Amino acid sequence: MIIDATHDPELASWVESANATDADFPIQNLPFGRFRAAASDPWRIGVAIGDQVLDLQATGLVTHGDMNQLMALSPADRSSLRHALSSGLRRGSAHEKAWRAALRPTAEVQLGVPCTIGDYTDFYVGIHHATTVGRLFRPDNPLLPNYKWVPIGYHGRASTILPSGQGFARPQGQLKGATDEAPRLAPTERLDFELELGLFIGRGNPLGQAIPMASAEQHLFGITLFNDWSARDIQAWEYQPLGPFLSKNFASTVSPWLVTMEALAPFRRAFTRPEGDPAPLPYLDDEANRRGGAFDIALEVRLQSRAMREAGLPPHVISHSNFADAAYWTAAQLVAHHTVNGCALASGDLFGSGTLSGPRPEQAGSLLELTQGGKQRIALPGGETRAFVEDGDSVTLAGRCSRNGFRSIGFGPCEATVMPADAGTGGRTAP
Amino acid sequence: MIIDATHDPELASWVESANATDADFPIQNLPFGRFRAAASDPWRIGVAIGDQVLDLQATGLVTHGDMNQLMALSPADRSSLRHALSSGLRRGSAHEKAWRAALRPTAEVQLGVPCTIGDYTDFYVGIHHATTVGRLFRPDNPLLPNYKWVPIGYHGRASTILPSGQGFARPQGQLKGATDEAPRLAPTERLDFELELGLFIGRGNPLGQAIPMASAEQHLFGITLFNDWSARDIQAWEYQPLGPFLSKNFASTVSPWLVTMEALAPFRRAFTRPEGDPAPLPYLDDEANRRGGAFDIALEVRLQSRAMREAGLPPHVISHSNFADAAYWTAAQLVAHHTVNGCALASGDLFGSGTLSGPRPEQAGSLLELTQGGKQRIALPGGETRAFVEDGDSVTLAGRCSRNGFRSIGFGPCEATVMPADAGTGGRTAP
Repeated sequence: MIIDATHDPELASWVESANATDADFPIQNLPFGRFRAAASDPWRIGVAIGDQVLDLQATGLVTHGDMNQLMALSPADRSSLRHALSSGLRRGSAHEKAWRAALRPTAEVQLGVPCTIGDYTDFYVGIHHATTVGRLFRPDNPLLPNYKWVPIGYHGRASTILPSGQGFARPQGQLKGATDEAPRLAPTERLDFELELGLFIGRGNPLGQAIPMASAEQHLFGITLFNDWSARDIQAWEYQPLGPFLSKNFASTVSPWLVTMEALAPFRRAFTRPEGDPAPLPYLDDEANRRGGAFDIALEVRLQSRAMREAGLPPHVISHSNFADAAYWTAAQLVAHHTVNGCALASGDLFGSGTLSGPRPEQAGSLLELTQGGKQRIALPGGETRAFVEDGDSVTLAGRCSRNGFRSIGFGPCEATVMPADAGTGGRTAP
Repeated sequence: MIIDATHDPELASWVESANATDADFPIQNLPFGRFRAAASDPWRIGVAIGDQVLDLQATGLVTHGDMNQLMALSPADRSSLRHALSSGLRRGSAHEKAWRAALRPTAEVQLGVPCTIGDYTDFYVGIHHATTVGRLFRPDNPLLPNYKWVPIGYHGRASTILPSGQGFARPQGQLKGATDEAPRLAPTERLDFELELGLFIGRGNPLGQAIPMASAEQHLFGITLFNDWSARDIQAWEYQPLGPFLSKNFASTVSPWLVTMEALAPFRRAFTRPEGDPAPLPYLDDEANRRGGAFDIALEVRLQSRAMREAGLPPHVISHSNFADAAYWTAAQLVAHHTVNGCALASGDLFGSGTLSGPRPEQAGSLLELTQGGKQRIALPGGETRAFVEDGDSVTLAGRCSRNGFRSIGFGPCEATVMPADAGTGGRTAP
């Protein structure tokens, strides 16, 4: 993952919208996603460039529409594909005429979950999140003794990972107040977002064969934004002893574009632990990881209520953070840890990073933290306040990488709007 | 799920091996599974009858080899298929001649995981297990306050669910003794089995639409045996606060035959809670469930060490239990609970029941319980003893349903042999 010609900040594209300074998808990015013209069509593999999607099959660079197969390419083949795309999309390319016919305006296509997700694991790398939330659930014991040794993770539900833009109904579940004698079934009263990144596996590993740190990143294909919606009241009552379940698996939202590890290469950062912390065990440590295992990805959460939408007020930034500041473990460490017991990963598997709260209170990646468990409501433009997410609220995650001497790249939006409980479970039941 | 002509105990098959009294697969059972002649062939759908597999496509009853599609049939279509199979396989059937050509000796084919498993959830319905294990982890607080209200469950890993007969290497992971200053990476020293059943979903539900108790069982296709292998030392160190992860996801073993809900109908039992326990919340309760939501499935765990194998000693029964005695929640309740928040289930999803320990100590479904956390070793024929599973040990789960006036049916074996750590992770690493 060297920094090569595809990152040249002077490169411009014949797709003019890609050359705007604030474009998420300049020619230096080239993320992969799935698109279709209509719900009845099969998914096709696309590359985002400016406000257009390039149909990869129509360029002749691939002969199929199977994203998982593309993700499993060898690092050398992935690099060749990136160079071919960069070369074909740059100003003056001989491909311009042919490839123009392969462009679709992004606004006119449907974007999906970027690949078929086999298994989904949610990690817990945000040490500030773990500490703050730990304090709410266990005041005496916020950060458990294993946290600095074990990259804590647990399995999640793949079937309810939704593409950006798809709303969902407020879930119901068992709620029990501290003084209630018994739980009751009701729509959650403490619906929250979680600001996460989604790390997607490219090539898997055979059962029984651990992936060492030295090659861990070669098994990652790319990164998306990821909102791990959570019902805090359901969670508090159900989570012991085996972890969160119905409080998390009603919906998660993923952004459509896989920003590749190659595109992210210029935004690496040294990875160091605070003075006095234990060194990672050898299977989670290597020189390359210490030198550049972290990624500088600026993150933002925006909320727009129904009232704000109706008043024409734009989404309001309620939090901002950075992957490199928030995470106690790197992407490579998650791959090495997940497979150290021989667990088999497959192309298209998803790792949620865990909530990426920054060190300061206003950098928190969830309302649970921002409002101190609902006690300190936050203010919205137009006069509303929020303790937790309300019906009609739209939550958008955004991410951007910037560094002097390089073109900034973005992740595109990760958005969903919460519908009332009776739009789903509360009102209808399956036969 | 009425008891109908397909359960008539007088029915016999022209496949003579199906008529033996101790056959797991008499004509009253007719479980579905996937088989192939060689690893390079695609899977085909088969029905077990005696010591033979009936190739379903070769009978003309289905036109494809996609088990998940078959599992999604409507209850009426499933019933028709069962009646057609029962009628074609019975003595005197006009199909005998044509169907004989569709038989393969089970011993000559490879049997797989019964379907493509999308999402896998592990429940925790064994109240005796939860109490005994809870006491080991939390002596003051064995059964948590939510247990009698919430069917506790958590998500597991689908990619490492292995077919019966496939061995796996002892996993390594972080181990930390109570007095150790730091964890170390080593092969687990406390490898355990868990005696569970696997409940497979037939038809799914759309996102946001809960499945009510009244139709919950119609979404279940069938039941298998399921061994949720566990590394107790890895588990103890990693499991807080988000639940078990690498201690469970290295391997689980499933038996090849889906014993259908129709085949299990004669073995229903009334489902009652102990006097004084709270009634389930209304979304987890209905009259039909109380009348017959439990299933009388006798279960057994057998262990055979390498030394026993070499000495010609047969597998030794180390535990026996029964689904109906062990489970605090029924299959229908698990479906209703899993979807009450709108979570979407799909055909082929798997629910592990949780460890099915009976009320008495010798009925425990794990070594953790049988040996009181390794302190009370159990004896094996030939003079060996066990605290936990050792390399070369083969663990087999078995299940059988019996009731006066009906033919007994069985589940077939669920077996795996543990290989040394250096057969996998410890010795080789993935590129």
